Amino acid sequence: MQVYLDNSSTTQPFPEVIEAVEECFRENYGNPSSLHRKGLEAEKIIKNSRRRIAETLGAADNELIFTSGGSEANNLALFGVINKYQRGNYLVTSQIEHPSVLHAFKRMEQQGYKVTYLPVDGTGKVNLDELQTCLNSHPALVSIMMANNEIGTIQPLEAIRAIIDAQKNKPLFHVDAVQAFGKLLFNVKKLNIDLLTISGHKFHGPKGIGALYLRKGIQLEPLIYGGGQETGHRSGTENVPGIAGMGVAAAQIMRNLNSNIHKLRQLKKHLTEFITRSIENIRVNSLDTEDFAPHILSVSFPGIKAEVLLHALEQDGIYVSTGAACSSRKQSPSHVLTAIGLNKDEIEGTIRCSFSIQNTEPEINYVSERLVHHVRELRRII
Amino acid sequence: MQVYLDNSSTTQPFPEVIEAVEECFRENYGNPSSLHRKGLEAEKIIKNSRRRIAETLGAADNELIFTSGGSEANNLALFGVINKYQRGNYLVTSQIEHPSVLHAFKRMEQQGYKVTYLPVDGTGKVNLDELQTCLNSHPALVSIMMANNEIGTIQPLEAIRAIIDAQKNKPLFHVDAVQAFGKLLFNVKKLNIDLLTISGHKFHGPKGIGALYLRKGIQLEPLIYGGGQETGHRSGTENVPGIAGMGVAAAQIMRNLNSNIHKLRQLKKHLTEFITRSIENIRVNSLDTEDFAPHILSVSFPGIKAEVLLHALEQDGIYVSTGAACSSRKQSPSHVLTAIGLNKDEIEGTIRCSFSIQNTEPEINYVSERLVHHVRELRRII
Repeated sequence: MQVYLDNSSTTQPFPEVIEAVEECFRENYGNPSSLHRKGLEAEKIIKNSRRRIAETLGAADNELIFTSGGSEANNLALFGVINKYQRGNYLVTSQIEHPSVLHAFKRMEQQGYKVTYLPVDGTGKVNLDELQTCLNSHPALVSIMMANNEIGTIQPLEAIRAIIDAQKNKPLFHVDAVQAFGKLLFNVKKLNIDLLTISGHKFHGPKGIGALYLRKGIQLEPLIYGGGQETGHRSGTENVPGIAGMGVAAAQIMRNLNSNIHKLRQLKKHLTEFITRSIENIRVNSLDTEDFAPHILSVSFPGIKAEVLLHALEQDGIYVSTGAACSSRKQSPSHVLTAIGLNKDEIEGTIRCSFSIQNTEPEINYVSERLVHHVRELRRII
Repeated sequence: MQVYLDNSSTTQPFPEVIEAVEECFRENYGNPSSLHRKGLEAEKIIKNSRRRIAETLGAADNELIFTSGGSEANNLALFGVINKYQRGNYLVTSQIEHPSVLHAFKRMEQQGYKVTYLPVDGTGKVNLDELQTCLNSHPALVSIMMANNEIGTIQPLEAIRAIIDAQKNKPLFHVDAVQAFGKLLFNVKKLNIDLLTISGHKFHGPKGIGALYLRKGIQLEPLIYGGGQETGHRSGTENVPGIAGMGVAAAQIMRNLNSNIHKLRQLKKHLTEFITRSIENIRVNSLDTEDFAPHILSVSFPGIKAEVLLHALEQDGIYVSTGAACSSRKQSPSHVLTAIGLNKDEIEGTIRCSFSIQNTEPEINYVSERLVHHVRELRRII
């Protein structure tokens, strides 16, 4: 049996996504900027996909910019705002953001900006009192992720929004929703978000395509200059097959969102309960509550090296991740697990199982049994 | 009959490319940064593709960075060098570069850099005397395209290289080879190039993927920060299917490069001769010599509106372009045609036919006949 439980790293594309991509490759290969029919056909595909995705966010069609993925969308949002608006040199984010946000801010620090990285509590929630204090210093921009990619913590965005709204000079508010889209119900208008990032391959769409929601009226300085595609915010011939596939994936994942969430929660609960019942001395970093994303389960097994456990599970056809694993195999200890207060032993023994709606109950039974087996074996040896 | 003659805008992917992409979507969907087998499989695909493409350029594997396309690669090369090395504030390029180069330089001018846009002669060749003069002012960077996208002029890169090499403080040398790759034989080492851009969808590969050759030892400040993929120069989960498809396309287009070039030259010559023989008062902007790319034929028909001619041909299933058409349907007159000295009437009456090895002799016979017919008809009416 093969069980892919690394869906926070990337997902298997839906068959309908593959079909849409293939159709673009075979039939609709025109350049959307071309004036002839082949160009118009390609442009129409982009328009449809933009409308579909914007709808799922509660946004208007003209508020969505396609990028090459989540990392580009995050960088475009942050550098784009900073370079366009000269609204002071103070910025706020959290300690547990994705590297594409954190390292963009590190770069800004080199450029002379002052950045506060908000601390989080033991469950990964940002400290709202500290946010309040930061806001008194009038940051130009606040960037907080919706759901954390390593442990799944959902940030209290409504409370954050309320704190921001109480300010006179409101900072712009960016949200990295890469792990949240398709796993949580949200609406950019209700949350009054200015910029929001999503990534196609995290919800069974293609790799190499993402999008940035950009509230009407906000301007960005581009990262990529050129032909003026994407209303001048992102030049380059559009990735038409990627855009088509992302649109299909978005529509499909949102169609049954509530039942999808329910299914993911069931799978997570099932695995959590089994290992909690069967193994002593563990730390579950992703609680089984509404405050955590339904598809991420991070568990620490002190005394075990996560990488050894990962490869043992791999022998059984089970694919999980240590820590985050979407940052090019760094060996440094996870900044997220450090921020929530785990010790070295716990961090080194942490694996992340991330589910998709393609996973099944029998798969989770199998994983439960193999995981418990390997943890017991590895602990017996050491 | 359908004849696609807009291959400088974008090409129809090779069937083998579609297969490679599809296989990644179905089987090799892992994240290359994941430690398990699904990750390693994806990483292996990237490694193979990188080796294949690097080989075709005469580069080493570790000298190639994948990007989301030609525009990103051009921007990464230019901003990356400028932001990494503080080597003065003077830069040199030409008047007929692609918008992704020109507009990057325009942005640098806003940031305080001084840029010379070298003029070109009536055939589109940069003025080498002016280049020599510029070099006396010690530019940090020179960026010249290999083959122009609107008229096909091939720049004398060996002569340019010799002029640069005669300098004490050599500027870095970037070449936009988006239109040249797969249509000209070149080697980055022989040309002693520092940075060179290619784009997958211009040679029957996928859209949304490109690459930058970066000579060993040269560092770039990234445009996109994050997980540190592509040796830290370009973060973001790799577009594995795009990379796989681009590798297949590169290998295939280079396999029979000489006969491909011969075929393209024949098609171009055939069409040129027919219309030159049949229509009076035209200006052929792409000569039938070794100084022009084999796949681009730009012709001006004074008195005719190119867009009208384009749509007339479209009715016959023939797809051509007015001017460049890869810059999001701008209405301003072509900067390339202006630079080579065309008047307003000539510019407005210019179409570009761009060939691929998928085109056939009977197709070109058909196009010749229809083109001559429509030009005569349109001229009769006005």
